[in-house]
Amino acid sequence: MAALAQKKEPTGDPKLVDIGKVKNIGLRGVTVADTKISHVDGENGVLIYRGYRIEDLARNSTFEETAYLLHHDALPTGQQLEAFNAGLAEARDIPAFIFDSLKKLPPWSQPMDVLQAAVPLLAAADPDLLVETREANIAKAVRLIARVPMVVASWDRIRKGHEPVPAADGLSHAGNFLWRLTGIQPDSEVVRALDTALVLHADHSFNASTFACREVVSTRAHMYAGVSAGVGALSGGLHGGANAQVMKMLMELEEETDVAGWVKKLLDGGGKIMGMGHAVYKTFDPRARFLKEMCFRLGKKLGQEHWCTLSTRIEEAAVAEFEKRGKTTIKPNVDFFSAPVYHMMGIPHDLMTPLFAIARIAGWTAHIIEEKFGDAQEKPALYRPSSEYIGNYCGKTGCAYVPIPQRT
Amino acid sequence: MAALAQKKEPTGDPKLVDIGKVKNIGLRGVTVADTKISHVDGENGVLIYRGYRIEDLARNSTFEETAYLLHHDALPTGQQLEAFNAGLAEARDIPAFIFDSLKKLPPWSQPMDVLQAAVPLLAAADPDLLVETREANIAKAVRLIARVPMVVASWDRIRKGHEPVPAADGLSHAGNFLWRLTGIQPDSEVVRALDTALVLHADHSFNASTFACREVVSTRAHMYAGVSAGVGALSGGLHGGANAQVMKMLMELEEETDVAGWVKKLLDGGGKIMGMGHAVYKTFDPRARFLKEMCFRLGKKLGQEHWCTLSTRIEEAAVAEFEKRGKTTIKPNVDFFSAPVYHMMGIPHDLMTPLFAIARIAGWTAHIIEEKFGDAQEKPALYRPSSEYIGNYCGKTGCAYVPIPQRT
Repeated sequence: MAALAQKKEPTGDPKLVDIGKVKNIGLRGVTVADTKISHVDGENGVLIYRGYRIEDLARNSTFEETAYLLHHDALPTGQQLEAFNAGLAEARDIPAFIFDSLKKLPPWSQPMDVLQAAVPLLAAADPDLLVETREANIAKAVRLIARVPMVVASWDRIRKGHEPVPAADGLSHAGNFLWRLTGIQPDSEVVRALDTALVLHADHSFNASTFACREVVSTRAHMYAGVSAGVGALSGGLHGGANAQVMKMLMELEEETDVAGWVKKLLDGGGKIMGMGHAVYKTFDPRARFLKEMCFRLGKKLGQEHWCTLSTRIEEAAVAEFEKRGKTTIKPNVDFFSAPVYHMMGIPHDLMTPLFAIARIAGWTAHIIEEKFGDAQEKPALYRPSSEYIGNYCGKTGCAYVPIPQRT
Repeated sequence: MAALAQKKEPTGDPKLVDIGKVKNIGLRGVTVADTKISHVDGENGVLIYRGYRIEDLARNSTFEETAYLLHHDALPTGQQLEAFNAGLAEARDIPAFIFDSLKKLPPWSQPMDVLQAAVPLLAAADPDLLVETREANIAKAVRLIARVPMVVASWDRIRKGHEPVPAADGLSHAGNFLWRLTGIQPDSEVVRALDTALVLHADHSFNASTFACREVVSTRAHMYAGVSAGVGALSGGLHGGANAQVMKMLMELEEETDVAGWVKKLLDGGGKIMGMGHAVYKTFDPRARFLKEMCFRLGKKLGQEHWCTLSTRIEEAAVAEFEKRGKTTIKPNVDFFSAPVYHMMGIPHDLMTPLFAIARIAGWTAHIIEEKFGDAQEKPALYRPSSEYIGNYCGKTGCAYVPIPQRT
């Protein structure tokens, strides 16, 4: 392709601003918007939702209450929470066409792909779909929060040849998910543990999936289009997909006696320990700390504490190895202890990432509403970044188009 | 919520870099990556794909050849193009489960929602789904390029109660789409016009949908997850959704005698002329120039020139009005003349945006491959921007969690 050798490098889009190191590092450190939803203080390991520390919410709150907080910027009164729960209960009865449609899919369809597909299909069942007010978007958000777990649980049943289980009255949001997954009345302590895990995963400022949601709706696409994109971003191994990969590692190491040796060998070979390190946290992830305690508590109850012990052995060996290599900021992140917790609850391993989506849908929808109706001083029209062109260039006239027979 | 009044504003994520005006303006002017795929020179109205000017490609090339160029950084030889076309032809026979699944959807499901859903469902039919090499991704891209038009055309038939039409040998990519939409052998001049429109829409550097694709796969999500997100972003009225809105405007103005008065009234009321103005172009969009000529050519042939005359009247009135208001850079963009062109071809109005996707899939997949395997000097781990927290703040200890009965 000698004829196309670059003569002169274009300077990129004309509005290019030189922001030095920002280019090519995944927007790290680039502030793209104001937000009132959550804040990650990575130096101190502090995460707040709407002003509240994640530990306080995990201890005292429920997923339903936390979702309300994320949407409304305030904890609900008893009456407000009751109305919110009624909205969720009503929305849980999703139209049969979704199940009929999913039943036609090959059983090997990946749960995250099925979920990414089901979200825009659910758009057709939303009476407010094209109403772009804040109130209508809150109504859509409630429907999505209620329906995403229904899709995940039902797909697991459908692919195994079972019928979906209808929603149950008197169970919490977390309880309903376990009920629909198994058709068995779930243990209340397990339900509470899952509820807490959902609170811990509900939001995390401008992570990659949340940013995808915001980016998509910045074009004025509807909420379903944005959430579906969020599911797609979450599926990646560097994001939500990590919890399933942590579980794979735990399964591989179940019989391993020399965990420290395994860790050293992996790092010597340039490998990564799944579930350790984070783009923002430079210390212990507060969610991981909480999940670690939960792991041991639940492990003791269920007689499966060995998973937590194994995780801790990997953690200790890895932190020691990282320190030897001068990397003192690599600690367990949210995925490291959520994997054994979900495993003990009986969650199929490829539903661990969908379970992340079941929690994060609360944050995604809150961010979509903020993107559409936020009170930031100046709303962007849409996210449309610049790029630097470094490819073939033959001047403004363009490279000469050579007819096919003369090409070599 | 007085108790939560903000005490002190957090400074955002710790890695925050002060880039002044960049915040809150939709990443305009922020260079997020290098690219070798395309370049928009908005000041001069020049668009190049891999070094070639869009006008040259529109005049001489085909969509198939352009897609190959976008993927391979060079125009194909005769043999290479033959192999590429054979790959497309093979992939056009998509598995029946997709149609079976779509047949269960309510007929009012929006074509863009159905397409956003169908893409991740197609993942289950890709034998290379989990193979993350450049070659495997090129194979996935060919399958997606072939199958996206099939989904769009088939959904239109299914929602109208017809069976999908199988692919036809001996028709180009554009021809196959029209054939499957109508079941009628398409006119060769119309096919060539559609082919050219697809070339013109095939790529456009880091537009919002392409950026969504890249952002999603930066988490190591697979190509189908990324493309589905692109479809979601494209659906928005500020992006691909604009062509359908232009058509709506044309239908409303078909009988209007005072177009200039209509334009003035709209702008006086703070309204926007759909299909005019662009984030990057500050002069005539080269694609719009080409489509305008095509409109009149096709209009003459089909006896429907009045649509092009009407568009031109709106254009002239709007440009005159904008100039009076000191806005001399607002000109027709790609959507302004593609709408009447598609209408004359008999494309249902709500398939105009899906048709944009049928073209842009070539660019999306090229960008996904560049994001995954690009030769940029330093690959970002994933796009994870920062945000500035301006919400409730009660210091590092967090706001006090008040039990429900004590809330007011």
